[in-house]
Amino acid sequence: MGSRWDTGRTEAFSDGVFAIAITLLVLDIGIPADEFDDLWSAIFHEWPAYLGYATSFLTIGGIWLAHHGVFRRLSYANDEVMRINLLLLMAVSFLPFPTRLVAEAIRDENAERAAAIFYGACLLAIAVLFSALWGAVARDRTLLRPEVSEDEIGTILIASSPSIGFYAAAIALALVAPRAAAFGYLVIAVVAALRVPGDEVAPEPA
Amino acid sequence: MGSRWDTGRTEAFSDGVFAIAITLLVLDIGIPADEFDDLWSAIFHEWPAYLGYATSFLTIGGIWLAHHGVFRRLSYANDEVMRINLLLLMAVSFLPFPTRLVAEAIRDENAERAAAIFYGACLLAIAVLFSALWGAVARDRTLLRPEVSEDEIGTILIASSPSIGFYAAAIALALVAPRAAAFGYLVIAVVAALRVPGDEVAPEPA
Amino acid sequence: MGSRWDTGRTEAFSDGVFAIAITLLVLDIGIPADEFDDLWSAIFHEWPAYLGYATSFLTIGGIWLAHHGVFRRLSYANDEVMRINLLLLMAVSFLPFPTRLVAEAIRDENAERAAAIFYGACLLAIAVLFSALWGAVARDRTLLRPEVSEDEIGTILIASSPSIGFYAAAIALALVAPRAAAFGYLVIAVVAALRVPGDEVAPEPA
Amino acid sequence: MGSRWDTGRTEAFSDGVFAIAITLLVLDIGIPADEFDDLWSAIFHEWPAYLGYATSFLTIGGIWLAHHGVFRRLSYANDEVMRINLLLLMAVSFLPFPTRLVAEAIRDENAERAAAIFYGACLLAIAVLFSALWGAVARDRTLLRPEVSEDEIGTILIASSPSIGFYAAAIALALVAPRAAAFGYLVIAVVAALRVPGDEVAPEPA
Repeated sequence: MGSRWDTGRTEAFSDGVFAIAITLLVLDIGIPADEFDDLWSAIFHEWPAYLGYATSFLTIGGIWLAHHGVFRRLSYANDEVMRINLLLLMAVSFLPFPTRLVAEAIRDENAERAAAIFYGACLLAIAVLFSALWGAVARDRTLLRPEVSEDEIGTILIASSPSIGFYAAAIALALVAPRAAAFGYLVIAVVAALRVPGDEVAPEPA
Repeated sequence: MGSRWDTGRTEAFSDGVFAIAITLLVLDIGIPADEFDDLWSAIFHEWPAYLGYATSFLTIGGIWLAHHGVFRRLSYANDEVMRINLLLLMAVSFLPFPTRLVAEAIRDENAERAAAIFYGACLLAIAVLFSALWGAVARDRTLLRPEVSEDEIGTILIASSPSIGFYAAAIALALVAPRAAAFGYLVIAVVAALRVPGDEVAPEPA
Repeated sequence: MGSRWDTGRTEAFSDGVFAIAITLLVLDIGIPADEFDDLWSAIFHEWPAYLGYATSFLTIGGIWLAHHGVFRRLSYANDEVMRINLLLLMAVSFLPFPTRLVAEAIRDENAERAAAIFYGACLLAIAVLFSALWGAVARDRTLLRPEVSEDEIGTILIASSPSIGFYAAAIALALVAPRAAAFGYLVIAVVAALRVPGDEVAPEPA
Repeated sequence: MGSRWDTGRTEAFSDGVFAIAITLLVLDIGIPADEFDDLWSAIFHEWPAYLGYATSFLTIGGIWLAHHGVFRRLSYANDEVMRINLLLLMAVSFLPFPTRLVAEAIRDENAERAAAIFYGACLLAIAVLFSALWGAVARDRTLLRPEVSEDEIGTILIASSPSIGFYAAAIALALVAPRAAAFGYLVIAVVAALRVPGDEVAPEPA
């Protein structure tokens, strides 16, 4: 009933979507010509745009590293993995919209709370979809390459799971302190990107 | 007189176009700063943009899956396949324009009908071009890899043909109920993406 | 003194630039909300944008096919080929700007002539750079794969050269009849895309 | 403690980001419809946009060539190389923003100095990150392919290092003569792109 999919072209297509989503983020940064009288302040005044850029860039970069870690270990994908992957790509491609929103709304008292929660919810959705992707693989271990050990399966679970909790906490924080939550999202992205395990353990330097 | 083409680079180029078209869709979603006073309603008020995003994303995603299914089975492409493929890419790349149009016009009584029909016509053109692509392959079976069976050729025809009928029906629906048609396009995209057959039948789980 | 370059990554990078440039063209098509009262006329009224989209899409598509034909025949690239290729990519990436200009200016009596000439000059520059690319290869035949025959070298020269003359003629036409020239560019793009030779001659159908 | 990474997918992802960043630059060039009365002057009047386009295009093109030269020589990447590479991609993707700024501000007496310094600082950051990337490789030579000689390591260092000095000098120049500095950035980009060594030395022509 189910079917199997080759992973090579899926990986290439996903990489394309990640690379484009990450690069489109810059289109939302800009300084209107009527602020050119004091351009240095205008440049510094854009800090929320840089914060959003760095957060979304590192979030997508970390997901790309982790996605690579998953697909590198697969012999095949099944229908479920393909569908969850398509939803994950849809969520990642969507991220430039809430990024722009949070960058514009963070200094607006009426809007900053809603923008920070909405952005956090999108980040949470990406983390949940990524965990679901790995969960779908873990449920059908015939998809995995024979050399993948139980230890590795666990390592990836450990690397991907806590983000969900951190994002939930940061969204709760956004209710009372939206700006602090915006910096919290950046910290989560940096930590997550640093915690993605590599393809193999490096030999001890001699 | 005719000539043969290697499929590898065509596949990579097509993947690039699909990935970019799918990712550009988000650029058309935005909330103007003067709606920040009540950002939650503004976010919900954007539902037609999310509907258009999801519909076009899943339509292109489904075409990508099906396109992969075709090219995976080819040894070579002939001139006709290359030309139809270029027209298919041209139609897919065009999709962000009617997507934006339908998202903006769906709440405008004067414009929603025209926008829904125009969007449906573009989706129909993509479905027709995809069927024409597979038809061109089926007319010259020397293009196919030797291991491709008649059964597989039939499976792909069955998977790609009914979309044309569904799109025609949804366009007719758009004449009387444009919003219903807009949701209909989403349903067609979801069903089409789910019906694309994988690369092989999975073994029965033990 | 000179050096040699592997062609694989250059080809992949060039393909990426072609695919992105071709897909960005759609961003310049749009209908302002104040024309929604009569959306069908507004959609038809956009014909210059569709003309520009089709012309630039098919021009870049044809260059991509021809570029593939060149790089497929190379063992290595030399410094000169790499530099001309970078200039060619710079000209192709630039094309969305004159495309937008000609689409907007074609109905403006004061501007249509300048826009049509400027667009034609950009198309001519692409054709000249492509000929220069192949010329650089033909000057150092140690770059070519051993199986490439003199006949093939000639075929590619014949396929790429006349475009330069056609573009020069169309630019001259733009001086007196800018709209006719705009359609002329489309015809040249279609003919050029159809004349790119495939990777090998197909066997006669039995 | 550290880990190793396969370089293939990193290279493909980096190429995607370079190709997209280079192609997005054109989106910032445009002529408003109210300047159509004298379109030729409007086209020439846009020279700062062309200058910025060419400078950023050639800067990214040169970094791409040099990046290819680094990754071609690696067997593996370590954690440090992966992180620096991600920062390098983040800086390259950011470049369209200062490019647009300098193109718009170069004729504004109040803003041209700040814009030229800011743009130069971004170019300097890219040069520093690239040197850091190669430095990280040079510190762990187990990452390099066995056939890479000390000579080659030195050649790449020589090719990448002086840019940092040139950018510092051009930024200092921007304090007194912002326009001259803008042309200086172009010259640095051209020279850097021409100085990237190829994959191997070409044989002497017979």
